[in-house]
Amino acid sequence: MSKKPETPLLDQVTFPADMRDMKPTQLKQLADELRAEMISAVSSTGGHFGSGLGVVELTVAIHYVFNTPDDKLIWDVGHQCYPHKILTGRRDRIRTLRQGGGLSGFTKRTESEYDPFGAAHSSTSISAAVGMAMASKFAGKPDKAIAVIGDGAMSAGMAYEAMNNAAQAGNQLVVILNDNDMSIAPPVGAMSAYLSRVLSSREYLSIRDIGRSLMKRLPKQLVTTARRAEEYARGLATGGTLFEELGFYYIGPIDGHNFDHLLPVLENVRDAKEGPILVHVVTEKGRGHPFGKAAADKYHAVPKFDVVTGELKKSTPKAPQYTKVFANSLVQEAEKDDKIVAISAAMPSGTGLDVFGKRFPDRTFDVGIAEQHGVTFAAGMATQGMKPFAAIYSTFLQRAYDQVVHDVAIQKLPVRFAIDRAGLVGSDGQTHAGSFDITYLASLPNMIVMAAGDEAELMHMVATAVAVDDYPTAFRYPRGEGLGVELPAIGSPLEIGRGRILREGSKVAILSLGGRLGEALKAADILDSRGLSTTVADARFAKPLDQAMIRDLAANHEVVITIEEGAIGGFGSHVLEFMSGEGLLDSASFKLRTMKLPDIFQEQDSPEKQYEQAHLTAPYIVETALRALGHNDFEASRGALA
Amino acid sequence: MSKKPETPLLDQVTFPADMRDMKPTQLKQLADELRAEMISAVSSTGGHFGSGLGVVELTVAIHYVFNTPDDKLIWDVGHQCYPHKILTGRRDRIRTLRQGGGLSGFTKRTESEYDPFGAAHSSTSISAAVGMAMASKFAGKPDKAIAVIGDGAMSAGMAYEAMNNAAQAGNQLVVILNDNDMSIAPPVGAMSAYLSRVLSSREYLSIRDIGRSLMKRLPKQLVTTARRAEEYARGLATGGTLFEELGFYYIGPIDGHNFDHLLPVLENVRDAKEGPILVHVVTEKGRGHPFGKAAADKYHAVPKFDVVTGELKKSTPKAPQYTKVFANSLVQEAEKDDKIVAISAAMPSGTGLDVFGKRFPDRTFDVGIAEQHGVTFAAGMATQGMKPFAAIYSTFLQRAYDQVVHDVAIQKLPVRFAIDRAGLVGSDGQTHAGSFDITYLASLPNMIVMAAGDEAELMHMVATAVAVDDYPTAFRYPRGEGLGVELPAIGSPLEIGRGRILREGSKVAILSLGGRLGEALKAADILDSRGLSTTVADARFAKPLDQAMIRDLAANHEVVITIEEGAIGGFGSHVLEFMSGEGLLDSASFKLRTMKLPDIFQEQDSPEKQYEQAHLTAPYIVETALRALGHNDFEASRGALA
Repeated sequence: MSKKPETPLLDQVTFPADMRDMKPTQLKQLADELRAEMISAVSSTGGHFGSGLGVVELTVAIHYVFNTPDDKLIWDVGHQCYPHKILTGRRDRIRTLRQGGGLSGFTKRTESEYDPFGAAHSSTSISAAVGMAMASKFAGKPDKAIAVIGDGAMSAGMAYEAMNNAAQAGNQLVVILNDNDMSIAPPVGAMSAYLSRVLSSREYLSIRDIGRSLMKRLPKQLVTTARRAEEYARGLATGGTLFEELGFYYIGPIDGHNFDHLLPVLENVRDAKEGPILVHVVTEKGRGHPFGKAAADKYHAVPKFDVVTGELKKSTPKAPQYTKVFANSLVQEAEKDDKIVAISAAMPSGTGLDVFGKRFPDRTFDVGIAEQHGVTFAAGMATQGMKPFAAIYSTFLQRAYDQVVHDVAIQKLPVRFAIDRAGLVGSDGQTHAGSFDITYLASLPNMIVMAAGDEAELMHMVATAVAVDDYPTAFRYPRGEGLGVELPAIGSPLEIGRGRILREGSKVAILSLGGRLGEALKAADILDSRGLSTTVADARFAKPLDQAMIRDLAANHEVVITIEEGAIGGFGSHVLEFMSGEGLLDSASFKLRTMKLPDIFQEQDSPEKQYEQAHLTAPYIVETALRALGHNDFEASRGALA
Repeated sequence: MSKKPETPLLDQVTFPADMRDMKPTQLKQLADELRAEMISAVSSTGGHFGSGLGVVELTVAIHYVFNTPDDKLIWDVGHQCYPHKILTGRRDRIRTLRQGGGLSGFTKRTESEYDPFGAAHSSTSISAAVGMAMASKFAGKPDKAIAVIGDGAMSAGMAYEAMNNAAQAGNQLVVILNDNDMSIAPPVGAMSAYLSRVLSSREYLSIRDIGRSLMKRLPKQLVTTARRAEEYARGLATGGTLFEELGFYYIGPIDGHNFDHLLPVLENVRDAKEGPILVHVVTEKGRGHPFGKAAADKYHAVPKFDVVTGELKKSTPKAPQYTKVFANSLVQEAEKDDKIVAISAAMPSGTGLDVFGKRFPDRTFDVGIAEQHGVTFAAGMATQGMKPFAAIYSTFLQRAYDQVVHDVAIQKLPVRFAIDRAGLVGSDGQTHAGSFDITYLASLPNMIVMAAGDEAELMHMVATAVAVDDYPTAFRYPRGEGLGVELPAIGSPLEIGRGRILREGSKVAILSLGGRLGEALKAADILDSRGLSTTVADARFAKPLDQAMIRDLAANHEVVITIEEGAIGGFGSHVLEFMSGEGLLDSASFKLRTMKLPDIFQEQDSPEKQYEQAHLTAPYIVETALRALGHNDFEASRGALA
């Protein structure tokens, strides 16, 4: 691991107040030390990287000028919050980022009073800031709320809704648009094009411009109508019109790495009598990292790496990643069927659709961070006979829930949802867990909901989704690697609502939906070895259920255990509802247990550890079976496995 | 009922093709007849009224100019689609609007090929239109997709996301901004203010302006860069800058009631070689109705009325409306607690918050059609010790699901969700049913989820939500009237997770959550009269469950029936999961049945009939109990009740 950098100035700063006595001229050195410290930390933990490096100076400047934590600083998404964490009492734990028991990779209210709002999903910051600003108004406090939001996050409707409602917050709201022309993927859409035009049409504001602009824009006296008119005209020249039309005072663009520019602007914004104000700051993502600039996408989020050579310390995969299997399958299917198109919401690489996009650029749509539009756009295409695959992480599909209900399910349109990152996701923690999709999708009439038990199954589910043209379909699959099973040359459509039996037993039946299948098989080995003959079934479908298979399992076993990587209300609940409705539970000869995610938002850790904490691993399946059978030696069995 | 108006021209039109041979000069008369017909129809059916009256000329002009249904016409929300339905083969059924078995009050794909996309929730039209336009491109077809969207719907982030992604659709996408300065409530926010500035800054385009503008904006040859620059400058003058910045060709504002203006503009838009184009049309909501203009809000949606006197034929209520009880309770609580604030998303009147707003204007926030922002704005206020009540219909809260999960539940912020229109809602049909909120909320850690069994309970739940300051709370209540129970002077906070027993029996237990409580009591009467002693319990909480009460019911009855006004995965599923986890279902001495909404999207009808179709009325409860007990004479019992 790399040596810790020398950081004499930074060593004096535990909280922002510690640097407010420094001279402005010292801030550059402080920022340089902060950048070095961050590089050193991330090299040992992995994590989001480029975003933080891009806002080092901005982070220092904001905490220097504003009175945090009384002034509330909200980092949109939170990818860029590592320098902020170092400056706000968490430097001693910065090398625990994203580790189990360590600091979150995002802002988090329970971690620090300097994190007034947790984030991780994009584009929430302005809404939260408007709420805080209004609360300050009510309380008669002068506190400001400052939202720092990237240009990519501006593609989300939520940011627009917030801007549309920002005027009421007046001068207590400050929005800092951190324009680095790069969210996770290159940003798309009209807003991005607009910002590019603004930047290409003129240089940064010079110091003289800044002075002039501030004088005009942030006068102590009330602005007259004539003044406002003049400003509109000016807005056009500086490119701020769009934000001015939405009711903001616009200042910018300014150089986000230059304290001579940042400090006077932020000080004036702080003291402004009118608002809300939007400061357009231009930064360079990945700034200051020797390897960062060449591969911005590669360095958005990184595993641990060698700080000298830049070599990424990836673990060698044992089996193909689900994401990759999905992407390759979809390309295969699309070679045969030119109606297939693919939609991503700003995650072409995360969802594997970059692969699809290379092969079929015209049939690939990245709509930006705009899941709502993405889903209804897909629905629109489906009305015309296209076969749209919307590849969206489980947690982000929550953004488009109403569109799934109202535009897709009610109309029974054959949109295909490829739901990546289903279940627990590891170091991204609570906010990224894909816990709820089985529950919120399987309750919808018309939906077909599948979950892949292994990577070959995922291929079959892609083929199934292609084949089903009269219902919406969804198939979910976990983050990470498959089980290492043999892959077919190409997927074959599954029979709808039909599961499969992987091994037959007579005493215990484990009915697995999705990614716990491997653990179910392991548990069966243990149970068998104890003389408890165990069946393992892969449900494949959360909806419609394989009713015949469920009846069989119930009729022929003493214990039936369902297991799924999802919250209550999902697969297990549907099985219970079916059984109860059919009277199968009346004086039942078998015992039914459902294993599912616990009723807590789980902290980050490795997915393996998270599933252990969730009690969804083989030893807990064994324990569940033994308890149901009245055995009392399950502790021993847990030990035996370990 | 009123006499049918004389409509000689309209009588010649069954489909749009029938009017395309008419002379442009005949269209005014056709429009006048269409308006008269619509007034006559709505007077006998009730329904959305002002919106349709405002777009009579626009509807005629679009179908006259464009080649529907090959060109796809998408009405945003669909409130305004009645004239469209009359012109597209459905005049013969127009007096069945919103009735059981009749025409939907919204556009609906299964009704007509002229309805390429169903609507009812706002702001979906542009996304769907972009999807259709792209599909036409793929198919090599020249078909256009035309989205007609109101100014109010422009406050939703989804519309912005779609505009941000519209450029790819080119000239095959047309957006008609129907600006009537009035959605359901007066529109709010910066976009609305922007549109008002546009309108106040200049008159409509004159014919000469239109000619000039079209020549400049829709040239056959490619627009040069210089031309574009000139247009930006022009954009500022005509107020189109904001849309131009988002990549649209902007034309307007034009008079939406004047065919001399509408026809040449739409013809040019139809033939344009570039796009997308946004036509800003100004209309007057409620135009042409003698009573409509005076009371636009009152005439947004109307019950049946007398076409001569304008008298609304309301049925006299027997008990107070839930909405009103909620509103009055919240005012009562807010008198005592100045931290209480209320948030509505463009539904101040529908949610009863207009009452609150009159009493506490500074503590009332209408964020426009912006549920996402509304919820996170509330979360922001909650971080600062405010007590925000977000009053949102169940179906519309779906729009903010991710915000509920990510910003509220994960952070355990005490946002209070007042969920109106829970369960089936009657004539608004499928798209407005509040079917899923128990399922999608109760699966979330940290959430407290309540449902009011009667109107007094609702008062207690408002008080409970005020009192709980360390968890998010939600309470749901149905559309319509309460049970007529006596109301307390003020609500009292309930013990969290504690239900109540309304009557005690020994054989059957009915465990009701929410609005079916009245039916449960009726069913108990019938069962008791047959010698089947019946307990009726009101669960009050879907989460946390009253585990002790559930154990008691299970231990002391032969049959336990849960009933709720929600889909699978909700209350009944949670009861089953609890029982299964505790082993209560192992060789159980009782039988458990769950009654819930069926797995279909139910068509519109009266709520009573809808619940009958859903098998959630007293006779079906009785039948469920009898079947579980092995009785075979439930047919007789159903007859006995009727």
